[in-house]
Amino acid sequence: MPPPLDLAGDVVDLLRALIDLESVSGNEAAIADQIESALRPYGHLEVIRDGNVVVARTQAGRAERVVIAGHIDTVPIAGNVPSWVSGGGEETIVWGRGACDMKGGVAVQLSVAAAVTEPTRDVTWIFYDNEEVEESRNGLARIAREQPDYLAGSFAVLCEPSNAGIEGGCQGTMRAEVELTGVAAHSARSWKGHNAIHDAAVVLGLLADYEPAQVEVDGLTYREGLNAVKITGGIAGNVIPDRCTIEVNYRFAPNKDAAQAEAHVREVLAGFTVTVTDVAVGARPGLDQPAAAEFLAAVGGEPAAKFGWTDVARFSAMGVPAVNFGPGDPMKAHADDEFCPAADVYSCREALLRWLGPAN
Amino acid sequence: MPPPLDLAGDVVDLLRALIDLESVSGNEAAIADQIESALRPYGHLEVIRDGNVVVARTQAGRAERVVIAGHIDTVPIAGNVPSWVSGGGEETIVWGRGACDMKGGVAVQLSVAAAVTEPTRDVTWIFYDNEEVEESRNGLARIAREQPDYLAGSFAVLCEPSNAGIEGGCQGTMRAEVELTGVAAHSARSWKGHNAIHDAAVVLGLLADYEPAQVEVDGLTYREGLNAVKITGGIAGNVIPDRCTIEVNYRFAPNKDAAQAEAHVREVLAGFTVTVTDVAVGARPGLDQPAAAEFLAAVGGEPAAKFGWTDVARFSAMGVPAVNFGPGDPMKAHADDEFCPAADVYSCREALLRWLGPAN
Repeated sequence: MPPPLDLAGDVVDLLRALIDLESVSGNEAAIADQIESALRPYGHLEVIRDGNVVVARTQAGRAERVVIAGHIDTVPIAGNVPSWVSGGGEETIVWGRGACDMKGGVAVQLSVAAAVTEPTRDVTWIFYDNEEVEESRNGLARIAREQPDYLAGSFAVLCEPSNAGIEGGCQGTMRAEVELTGVAAHSARSWKGHNAIHDAAVVLGLLADYEPAQVEVDGLTYREGLNAVKITGGIAGNVIPDRCTIEVNYRFAPNKDAAQAEAHVREVLAGFTVTVTDVAVGARPGLDQPAAAEFLAAVGGEPAAKFGWTDVARFSAMGVPAVNFGPGDPMKAHADDEFCPAADVYSCREALLRWLGPAN
Repeated sequence: MPPPLDLAGDVVDLLRALIDLESVSGNEAAIADQIESALRPYGHLEVIRDGNVVVARTQAGRAERVVIAGHIDTVPIAGNVPSWVSGGGEETIVWGRGACDMKGGVAVQLSVAAAVTEPTRDVTWIFYDNEEVEESRNGLARIAREQPDYLAGSFAVLCEPSNAGIEGGCQGTMRAEVELTGVAAHSARSWKGHNAIHDAAVVLGLLADYEPAQVEVDGLTYREGLNAVKITGGIAGNVIPDRCTIEVNYRFAPNKDAAQAEAHVREVLAGFTVTVTDVAVGARPGLDQPAAAEFLAAVGGEPAAKFGWTDVARFSAMGVPAVNFGPGDPMKAHADDEFCPAADVYSCREALLRWLGPAN
């Protein structure tokens, strides 16, 4: 058994302890047990265990409730557990799987949850599983279906890495397949066939020439993108290919719904056989909501648009404005040399304390 | 044990018996045993067994020697063994794996080898293994390396399917890879990367617009072709791909050597990273050689250019002019519904008898 998590100690030590608890998606039971055990002693928190999701909420009778969520799973280990540190003092860097995505955020959540015994607004802390895998396993999605009341609130913060700044909303993402068909033939008699891979020239030309829009939504600018992310075609070295498939990924601003996004992709690729295989709409940043104002003031700095799709969209879909706010550079998420600056962890903790009320 | 092959009986019955002896590449021992045993009783033939290659040659002291070769392996079975027949009389069709490629030709070889005890020209009959697999296993290539004297002659006939007509020489074939490199990035921030799949638009456009030459060589017209036969690119649905590979197949007329073929591909795809992965030069038809004249007269009809690469090129490389001549439609080679018209088998047998001397 690893030692219990010490929520009252240094938050960077807590981050390292969390990294050292391996929790690749599907294997979150041990870390969920530890989180649950560490939170239970705090009398100001109602702790609920639901599968490998842990919910801890204050019931201080405040007029407002906010939700602060983070996932406890990571992508697979790549020789980067246990954690290690480099530098020192204000330059300390914590390295290891999950340092950035997103055990830095989870450490901040746990530390603040323990510290703020008398919050200025009621808080629901959510620690969930299976964020790094397919949608159908996502712990937050499951809670949204089965226990939507756990997610109720006037504003939500998702502690995904954002360089300790606010990244509002998120873009939507759509995947579609463009299917090109030809006529197979022996490549020694190519004129008897029709080469489906050659036909891809036109589709890829349209994508290469595509000029993505920059769309302002609620004061933040979202930069779109339409890209081929996969191409496959060909059967054998002596056969004119009768099939070529191009997978396209459209990242779209959160002012578009799924139908509008699909219409746009079909317009760009007019004349080709397009099948939408996957779509997740984005989330408006919601920074114009009253609930967000005090959070912005507590954090300071200029909010930016979030480009990657995150679970903030689940809150948005439930009518709860949500932002990303957490330590670490999102560009290092999933990298083998994933890391998190200790300074980010401290500054995120301080910001949440300013927003939620003084530490006990 | 299957019944012994009856070389003195009906040649179409012999074809069916050969089909029923499964001989997918690598598994030719049983059929080679049967061929060897069936040929041994014929005193006019010197029979040599070398691995799964069987050589049978007359030693009648004629001024001229010709080589007549065929492979005894097939591509994998596809529910098409044992053989069956449809139609009847002159419309009889024999169905089954190898019917076309090329047990029809092997049946003709065996039947004529047994029948012509006093040939007008000496004949070396070759039955070889592993034609349908990689070059390094090819039985004829091995004999060319280890026992080149077995292949000596003034003219060679390869009994590959040619609709019972003469198909002269063969085209060369070259495979090359075009490698496109970009810069990976998260697809939500596509402007931070460079999409290698999009760059394929230019390469595929060049190939789609390419106008292949028609080249006359020794009186036959070869139609070339330059085609993408495979394309792969992309890592994941949310990553801008940093790599895309296009495999190209160039089929070129037999007046070009490997260096000329490579220079042409590099000229068409100038500016791109091209790596030649495989090349096999073609074979000139050689129908202007004196040795070919009597064969042409015996077969009759108009010779045509052979488009697919065949082992005639091995004879050509050794300075022996060679043609393809065998029963069955080459377009049905490797097809699950592979078949051979009985009429083709009979007419090929008759043509060889006219050329080599009367049956005993």
